[in-house]
Amino acid sequence: MTIQEMKERVYKANLELVSRGLVLYTWGNVSMIDREQGVIVIKPRGVEYDDLVADDMSVTDLDGNILEKGLLPSVDLDIHIAIYKAYPAIGGIAHTHSTYATAWAQARRDIPTYGTTHADHFYGDIPCTRALTPEEVAGNYEMETGNVVVETFQERGIDPMHLFGVNVGGHGPFTWGATPEASVENSVILEELSRMALLTEQIAPKAPKLESYVLDKHFLRKHGANSYFYQSKEK
Amino acid sequence: MTIQEMKERVYKANLELVSRGLVLYTWGNVSMIDREQGVIVIKPRGVEYDDLVADDMSVTDLDGNILEKGLLPSVDLDIHIAIYKAYPAIGGIAHTHSTYATAWAQARRDIPTYGTTHADHFYGDIPCTRALTPEEVAGNYEMETGNVVVETFQERGIDPMHLFGVNVGGHGPFTWGATPEASVENSVILEELSRMALLTEQIAPKAPKLESYVLDKHFLRKHGANSYFYQSKEK
Amino acid sequence: MTIQEMKERVYKANLELVSRGLVLYTWGNVSMIDREQGVIVIKPRGVEYDDLVADDMSVTDLDGNILEKGLLPSVDLDIHIAIYKAYPAIGGIAHTHSTYATAWAQARRDIPTYGTTHADHFYGDIPCTRALTPEEVAGNYEMETGNVVVETFQERGIDPMHLFGVNVGGHGPFTWGATPEASVENSVILEELSRMALLTEQIAPKAPKLESYVLDKHFLRKHGANSYFYQSKEK
Amino acid sequence: MTIQEMKERVYKANLELVSRGLVLYTWGNVSMIDREQGVIVIKPRGVEYDDLVADDMSVTDLDGNILEKGLLPSVDLDIHIAIYKAYPAIGGIAHTHSTYATAWAQARRDIPTYGTTHADHFYGDIPCTRALTPEEVAGNYEMETGNVVVETFQERGIDPMHLFGVNVGGHGPFTWGATPEASVENSVILEELSRMALLTEQIAPKAPKLESYVLDKHFLRKHGANSYFYQSKEK
Repeated sequence: MTIQEMKERVYKANLELVSRGLVLYTWGNVSMIDREQGVIVIKPRGVEYDDLVADDMSVTDLDGNILEKGLLPSVDLDIHIAIYKAYPAIGGIAHTHSTYATAWAQARRDIPTYGTTHADHFYGDIPCTRALTPEEVAGNYEMETGNVVVETFQERGIDPMHLFGVNVGGHGPFTWGATPEASVENSVILEELSRMALLTEQIAPKAPKLESYVLDKHFLRKHGANSYFYQSKEK
Repeated sequence: MTIQEMKERVYKANLELVSRGLVLYTWGNVSMIDREQGVIVIKPRGVEYDDLVADDMSVTDLDGNILEKGLLPSVDLDIHIAIYKAYPAIGGIAHTHSTYATAWAQARRDIPTYGTTHADHFYGDIPCTRALTPEEVAGNYEMETGNVVVETFQERGIDPMHLFGVNVGGHGPFTWGATPEASVENSVILEELSRMALLTEQIAPKAPKLESYVLDKHFLRKHGANSYFYQSKEK
Repeated sequence: MTIQEMKERVYKANLELVSRGLVLYTWGNVSMIDREQGVIVIKPRGVEYDDLVADDMSVTDLDGNILEKGLLPSVDLDIHIAIYKAYPAIGGIAHTHSTYATAWAQARRDIPTYGTTHADHFYGDIPCTRALTPEEVAGNYEMETGNVVVETFQERGIDPMHLFGVNVGGHGPFTWGATPEASVENSVILEELSRMALLTEQIAPKAPKLESYVLDKHFLRKHGANSYFYQSKEK
Repeated sequence: MTIQEMKERVYKANLELVSRGLVLYTWGNVSMIDREQGVIVIKPRGVEYDDLVADDMSVTDLDGNILEKGLLPSVDLDIHIAIYKAYPAIGGIAHTHSTYATAWAQARRDIPTYGTTHADHFYGDIPCTRALTPEEVAGNYEMETGNVVVETFQERGIDPMHLFGVNVGGHGPFTWGATPEASVENSVILEELSRMALLTEQIAPKAPKLESYVLDKHFLRKHGANSYFYQSKEK
């Protein structure tokens, strides 16, 4: 894939966040990685979407060094890099401040698995990280944010290819996937699950979590070797 | 009615769920039955709506055997079949993961009859089924889901032609009607009733249920032999 | 004003309820009265908005007798008539099942005056009527519903020209005004006030009511002899 | 800048409030000040947006004396003037009755700093003023409203260039900025923060406030001498 094609995809994926109502103003960013070429493409920082074109996307190497003269990359680039380095199977990352997911991040709570809608897409509760320490914030804040994501999955033994997102405590959600498009779809779904989970607790404060055998059934009929959910239209 | 006409109607009914905001991505499906011809038409599984055309709708017999080469039917087909077999008067079924109705399903609570808006369309509380057992999930999960719907109505003595929908506990709503269009309308109304019921409890946690004589009045002025609510524009 | 002009205005006022998001399907109706001519124009019952044209509006005398061959008037006509008879200064009435206002009706609570937004448009708490008795429901249900609105204002000593709406307990809101357009505007505002009042209680369960001297100030700077709020663009 | 250009900007800023969903009917107003020319431009009072053109904007001097024959200025003009006089660095003010911010005003609570979304734009809790006294309401009500805003910031030692907005208790939000466009953006953001803060408390009634060192980090990376967030597209 050419860098130009990567820029087009990252640009469209960023616009999709806006059209889905997940992003106000410049809040949010999507990136894509090509590990073979050693290239990351990401939305530039602090520019209004109306002013952006695909060619404005920033291009860096896997350590964040800028490869193309142009706009500076998102300030969150180092968060993306930390996650890319830890999870070699992912190809795209999306970050938003979508309303309901961010509310769970601010509440510092994992998003509980209350139903099959959740189980169809995330294999268990969506974790909320701990707060960063003063030292982490004073250092490379953005990279430490990514590190805390990785630490959370590691300490809890969560497989990032079964649970494609996280809430950074006090901040908001990051989601990922095999492609930037998949990472955006996971942001959209995470927002809807966040809303449903709150409503569930409002209807029944002691609502039970989904039965574990139903969680398995729903996740595995859509993901992995025995899935029977998707099909290609090509016949 | 030709199969082609059925496909058109099922296709449009599926799109209506999207335009009404009840469906994200591929979440949801509508089917139609023609009992004389022995045919069910249903949305194919796991294909984006943008990629679908009417001709893609799947065609099966009343046991789910595929009659036309093409896309595989919705994974929920067996749920539809179980309901069609139990309720001979219905002609269409809709399934969604609409936000508020699903939240009640996740909360494992019946949706209480709080007002005349509810009484105009559903003759009493909308039931939430029990969870499926591990054995039911390990077997023909989708058919067992349909069976649990039928069991719920049977055990509680609810007439499915007076109460056109249900919540599957931990999953979400199924609605039905004489036609696929009616089943979709009932999904839209169920979602609004679900939202109103939650808001009612938030305003008054001990809100009374609607007086039973008002429930009767409102349901019966719109449904059945003595209804005086609807009219045809043809004069 | 000709009957044709009345039909156009009533038709447009009904459509405004839809475009403002206050009405699903056929839920809701607007009427207009011309007391000199002895004519009421109201939306016909149970017809989809998409199928309606202005000429379909029903025309009756002040007792509900149909004056023009055509579609039957809204089943709620007698509610409108009871209110028109009691309040000679009003020229239009709107009825909806808008989400938040209906939730307050279902909760059987008056909508408290929590802020100046409320005070700008309604001079005090918006009352919720008592439930109708079994006898009232068994009789002329719709006319008794109107009577209970009038009874509520009378017993509480509320001036209907200072408080342009009511919630019928377990049912939903009716609003009025000098014109059908004003009655629709009051429905829109009532819905927003209903939403704000619930949110206020969620943020502070013991929120104080608006200071009475601020209520007076805001209502009276917009209504009555000493108002200084509105101006005509004609200069 | 010519008065005509100011009118265009104020007009567009007012329309932006509508298109962002922050304003129903005529609820809300934006103004702009040119201190060198001694001119304030503000939306006229009580005229529907559909009837307005840029040339209708009202022009006054810094004491509110009308400089151009035309429509009367917003009744809230004196609130704007009181704030402009106290804060010489600001160039625009926006006032709305947006749903969630107004609910916090009605609840008489400061909006807590629960997350980095808040910290990116407002440097701490958004204050809610005290209620006005009967004497203040009976006097120049609008000017006293502005005075109470200024008093609140003064008494609490808040820098209005670090915290660009306030809720007037029982009334609603005012926001400001270097330009009218910035004041509108701050209204949009305040509304979103108000919604997120309520949701946060609903998810976790005892949610902690954002760590102060994270508040500093986020606010200061976007504002002030050491910010590294924004860039101009001109390269």
